[in-house]
Amino acid sequence: MDKAAQEKNTGQSTNIVWHQASIGRQEREQQQGHKSVILWFTGLSGSGKSTLANAVNSSLFSKGCSTYVLDGDNIRHGLCKDLGFSDSDREENIRRIGELSKLFIDAGTITLTAFVSPFRADRQSARELVEDGDFIEIHCSANLAICEERDTKGLYAKARAGEIKEFTGISSPYEEPLSPEIKVDTGEQGLEECVEIILSKLIDMGIISNP
Amino acid sequence: MDKAAQEKNTGQSTNIVWHQASIGRQEREQQQGHKSVILWFTGLSGSGKSTLANAVNSSLFSKGCSTYVLDGDNIRHGLCKDLGFSDSDREENIRRIGELSKLFIDAGTITLTAFVSPFRADRQSARELVEDGDFIEIHCSANLAICEERDTKGLYAKARAGEIKEFTGISSPYEEPLSPEIKVDTGEQGLEECVEIILSKLIDMGIISNP
Repeated sequence: MDKAAQEKNTGQSTNIVWHQASIGRQEREQQQGHKSVILWFTGLSGSGKSTLANAVNSSLFSKGCSTYVLDGDNIRHGLCKDLGFSDSDREENIRRIGELSKLFIDAGTITLTAFVSPFRADRQSARELVEDGDFIEIHCSANLAICEERDTKGLYAKARAGEIKEFTGISSPYEEPLSPEIKVDTGEQGLEECVEIILSKLIDMGIISNP
Repeated sequence: MDKAAQEKNTGQSTNIVWHQASIGRQEREQQQGHKSVILWFTGLSGSGKSTLANAVNSSLFSKGCSTYVLDGDNIRHGLCKDLGFSDSDREENIRRIGELSKLFIDAGTITLTAFVSPFRADRQSARELVEDGDFIEIHCSANLAICEERDTKGLYAKARAGEIKEFTGISSPYEEPLSPEIKVDTGEQGLEECVEIILSKLIDMGIISNP
């Protein structure tokens, strides 16, 4: 903290000059002992994005990292509750999540997002909001057959019955990442294995330190 | 961290059950040693909201608190860049800032917002988004004459010349808080004095501990 920047410079009481003090991302990262990045989980509904993001979050938290998960539960009913599922609303939804993640990483937080985010262009837009190296795309690659067999929320059945329109994988495409920073097979691999793959990659990338 | 919740439960590979682990606000507050709240600075343009919020932020950061400032610089050009200054856009702007603050306090962060936020109804809406005790309204009460004399950004001159319409204090009302949790006279008091008033109030309220 720049102490001098906090000192008031008093002239006449109506002419007090207040210097601006500010804490930046670098100071926060130094204090916390890790870099702040976006871990952007993408994959089909039922591929385990949210569960995996929360498990990685728990692991990072137990190592003392500052972390936060953004997912449907805390976004769709709050910041984005005015948005529906039209193309433009879907695009705006991803834009806001990107801007939000940008604020969180500026605050020094490792930010995990868990949204289907099926389109490359939208993920690319989110990537371009932040600096090189700040956006880590994690492809949860469980295939459609497995996700549909799990159908944990009963959404595939509804989509097949035509009750949900433009459902990713059924009536709307999922565009797989071409070169994600990390890929985990959430259909065949166990949760702990996926968590370990991600954590060791984050250590390799110099984002967190080896405990 | 609930270790059990991270353990995979493998049956057939296509039938892996993944238990959800999640870290809540309470765990974060415990780890950080302080509560997370919104410090909502409100006052006229030029009243010193942003400077004061940043000075309080620096002080809290130096005590090891997790903190973040939301202000025009990081909001209007990002998350809210699609919004103008109509009544409905202004209301949506405050709504998003409120929702955003809610996420930050859920992440365990003391969140400082520095916006004119002239209308009681809007501040009340932001207050109602969060739990009792989470919203701390800080009135920066420098009066109009002092703010206009400072006119640090030349905005009052433009408003007087009619170049800016609906400018708070000139052509649009500022509704003073009726019972803010904290009030500082940013016209007559120095920056350091205002910071001290706020910090000792936060200690009194049990939000941060006495160093």
